Amino acid sequence: MKKEELSYIAGFLDGDGCIMLQLIVRKDYRLGYEIRPSIVFYQKDKNKQFLFWLKNKFQEGYIRSRKDGMAEYTIVGKKPVGKILFQVAPFLRLKKEHAKVVLAVLKKMPEKGNQMTAKNLLKFSKEADKFLFLNYSKKRTNTSEKVKEFLEANNLLIP
Amino acid sequence: MKKEELSYIAGFLDGDGCIMLQLIVRKDYRLGYEIRPSIVFYQKDKNKQFLFWLKNKFQEGYIRSRKDGMAEYTIVGKKPVGKILFQVAPFLRLKKEHAKVVLAVLKKMPEKGNQMTAKNLLKFSKEADKFLFLNYSKKRTNTSEKVKEFLEANNLLIP
Repeated sequence: MKKEELSYIAGFLDGDGCIMLQLIVRKDYRLGYEIRPSIVFYQKDKNKQFLFWLKNKFQEGYIRSRKDGMAEYTIVGKKPVGKILFQVAPFLRLKKEHAKVVLAVLKKMPEKGNQMTAKNLLKFSKEADKFLFLNYSKKRTNTSEKVKEFLEANNLLIP
Repeated sequence: MKKEELSYIAGFLDGDGCIMLQLIVRKDYRLGYEIRPSIVFYQKDKNKQFLFWLKNKFQEGYIRSRKDGMAEYTIVGKKPVGKILFQVAPFLRLKKEHAKVVLAVLKKMPEKGNQMTAKNLLKFSKEADKFLFLNYSKKRTNTSEKVKEFLEANNLLIP
């Protein structure tokens, strides 16, 4: 992609987008939690065409219309998020730190099909905690503290 | 300014900024109304540094902190708004139409110190009406219809 397009997208992401590293409860996961890196672009549903332009550029992720008249373009997962952040990060200004933290975690995350260790999950979940602060989140309930409790309660953390 | 910077700013403006053409009631104005072109960039007050970076790039406008934890960087008036839109417009995607309408009006607006004609004010206020639609404004109360009423009531519109 051209530098001009990447810097435009970086500006848009800084203005109205979101870079996240979330902790998701997974009853079916051995470690009880999933680390979920994602990027979300928001736009009024009537401007959804713009999100399709973005998706066409990145060839990743999915677009959905919400019930409140907004649409979201979401990219999830190690490979797609890594690919996009790697391109866009140099042009970010406000969310450079978000991108840096996510990229550092992604680098150490196991490839699809490979198991995450309890130790790494706990380490990554502490990185996810940073997003509580970075995104001024008020309702985040899953923290590294909870991950630690779960791992300890299930004897998964061997010191 | 570099193309990369301008396209970044265009992306940011498309994501979270505002391009406006407002009708302002002016009891002290002969024609009763002012046409007010403006550009506004928003950001959390704690990221105000970012707005200063922008202001330093454009060398126009002013920054103010609001009471709700947000800060605004506003550029108002024919010359400053025209200067900035002229540079940024080629890179806009979502707000290209806003920029086009404002630039077309600015071109025809009298220079500072020169009087606006009633006919032109009415013409421009019809352009301002378009922003009701473009910005999905719900509370706009000043429309070209009201301008027309005022001008007619004061015998300012000579057919």
